[in-house]
Amino acid sequence: MTSEPYLLTPGPLTISMRTKQSMLRDWGSWDVDFNSITGRVRSRLLDIVHGAGTHECVPLQGSGTFGVEAALGTLVPRGGHVLVPQNGAYCQRIARICRILGRQLTTIDYAEDQPVAAADVDRALAADPSITHVALVHCETSTGILNPLQEIARVVAARGRGLIIDAMSSFGALEIDARSVPFDGVIAASGKCLEGPPGMSFVIARRAALERCENNCHSLALDLYDQWVYMQKTTQWRYTPPTHVVAAFDSAIAQYLEEGGLAARGARYAHNCRTLLEGMTRLGLRSFLPAAIQAPIIVTFYAPDHPRYAFKSFYDAVKARGYILYPGKLTTVETFRVGCMGQLGEKGMGGVLEAVAAVLAQMRAGS
Amino acid sequence: MTSEPYLLTPGPLTISMRTKQSMLRDWGSWDVDFNSITGRVRSRLLDIVHGAGTHECVPLQGSGTFGVEAALGTLVPRGGHVLVPQNGAYCQRIARICRILGRQLTTIDYAEDQPVAAADVDRALAADPSITHVALVHCETSTGILNPLQEIARVVAARGRGLIIDAMSSFGALEIDARSVPFDGVIAASGKCLEGPPGMSFVIARRAALERCENNCHSLALDLYDQWVYMQKTTQWRYTPPTHVVAAFDSAIAQYLEEGGLAARGARYAHNCRTLLEGMTRLGLRSFLPAAIQAPIIVTFYAPDHPRYAFKSFYDAVKARGYILYPGKLTTVETFRVGCMGQLGEKGMGGVLEAVAAVLAQMRAGS
Repeated sequence: MTSEPYLLTPGPLTISMRTKQSMLRDWGSWDVDFNSITGRVRSRLLDIVHGAGTHECVPLQGSGTFGVEAALGTLVPRGGHVLVPQNGAYCQRIARICRILGRQLTTIDYAEDQPVAAADVDRALAADPSITHVALVHCETSTGILNPLQEIARVVAARGRGLIIDAMSSFGALEIDARSVPFDGVIAASGKCLEGPPGMSFVIARRAALERCENNCHSLALDLYDQWVYMQKTTQWRYTPPTHVVAAFDSAIAQYLEEGGLAARGARYAHNCRTLLEGMTRLGLRSFLPAAIQAPIIVTFYAPDHPRYAFKSFYDAVKARGYILYPGKLTTVETFRVGCMGQLGEKGMGGVLEAVAAVLAQMRAGS
Repeated sequence: MTSEPYLLTPGPLTISMRTKQSMLRDWGSWDVDFNSITGRVRSRLLDIVHGAGTHECVPLQGSGTFGVEAALGTLVPRGGHVLVPQNGAYCQRIARICRILGRQLTTIDYAEDQPVAAADVDRALAADPSITHVALVHCETSTGILNPLQEIARVVAARGRGLIIDAMSSFGALEIDARSVPFDGVIAASGKCLEGPPGMSFVIARRAALERCENNCHSLALDLYDQWVYMQKTTQWRYTPPTHVVAAFDSAIAQYLEEGGLAARGARYAHNCRTLLEGMTRLGLRSFLPAAIQAPIIVTFYAPDHPRYAFKSFYDAVKARGYILYPGKLTTVETFRVGCMGQLGEKGMGGVLEAVAAVLAQMRAGS
């Protein structure tokens, strides 16, 4: 095996050595050199969704979930009411956050292999005028399912409600265009499709919405309004930023732009995903979702139908061949997941398939 | 100047190249190799306060303030009442968090050059039996003042209340011994005296106190109880950890132990602080605090008494000579700060003094 396995996971990913090498320097968090990095990261993230002039990018310390909680706590007023269409674990996490924050909550429940239907959202909004916001997961990392963002955004806007999008595992690879997709907030993180190290999230918020959010938040650390106002005034983060992570994320975004931005990144992941699906099919493994609703981010496969299969030994054997897989997150069926993101090295997705093929052959041979 | 200036700040600090180089590898956050790093970090942090067997170390994504808010939100029940003795900006931040979280708050207010007096805390606790917790800042980074932790911990314990210690800039350099200093929680972060990169905080909590904290927290992301229970069960972080930061922090702690642990780290900083104070005195600069209450972490100096002095140009000139200073945080007098922490290179504190001397000479010569 290689000394360092490739990560076929939904993040942290295998990132480029150039990105990692940009962590070899220390930055003063008060210093203009560092603050100009923060400024560049913010404006480039905004450009990815075409939000310059209308939207604001507010970065936040911590993982993606910190950003999701911050967006819900800041953008939804205390008397707000959130509709969450649920078809996976990350939708459920949003619902859990709403409950803890004391925001009124309504859910629409789907099976995990069913995409959210815009018509259902429309009906729910028509039926209950007290709903102020819809919180949607764009790509459900728990299965890999893609929800029809554009259609849903259209009905939410038509009903005059706010939309908050958890785009954790889609931002930068799948199009979200603020000029045609109305939203109050989009949340993502450094360690996903933009291929930076994990350690910070960010929220792209519609400025007119954000401006009204003073004192909404239940938390000081997670108050995006306060973070934004302070950053606008000082160019600095309110509290100590993860300087090395920010510098590496800046480098990762530069490489993203060099690669060709969203179109190129999305095409690379789509190619990885097709190669993976075709290869696994040849190996006799079935994917959980039909291709039409499969996002090119992470794929859920049914466990091999074999009496000797156990995820842990399968995982260990594939890892010994240089690739780290990810466990399934479904409660009713035995599955495992394979990510399509990150720097997969010279062999690309072919290397993963070789490793899985060898391990399956071993298992079937009973060795 | 050197291509990368030394950071004479309260963090982020200049950290060792060995620490930074441990960020050149990607880790799967679900993988046993990474989780064993997390386990080692947690147990070594616990050992620094002699808390093994009685206390638990709960790491958290984000900056130190995230850890402070998490500790207050988790360890103080919703009906709790917090006494905050205030002699600086970080005490005030604790008070602000209590207000936002809706925890009842009482403060004792001091001037910024006055340490908290244990007798005042004792009187306040005697006068109001509804106070459940005292939240104390050990070393106030805003001035550099050291509060008498041991005496205060004694009176808080004698009155049967809980103590929460913000030890952000003292942990690992100044002794906090859980066997003789009773506390419910101590909060610190990766990027301070342990000389790791910024990006995570941690709370050392008394297990018997933590066990009673289910559902206390106002936040999902900042719920230390939930983080702890999940970590005990799975060895993993609840949400994506900053893997590179955690790996580097692990390396920084290994180097800390090699250096000789707390005694050696504290002695090095104390030596830096003495050198700084003596050198600055020779240059005609006065420190804000008397030596007896000065922690060997960061020193506040009055601005040079010179008509041409302005912090920004002073800062820029010292930076051009390879050292990054820190602005003062006092509202009434013009000051600047110099940190005593971090890897100061071959010239050590002498290098900073040379740079400051040269800049002062230039300023006085009117060039």
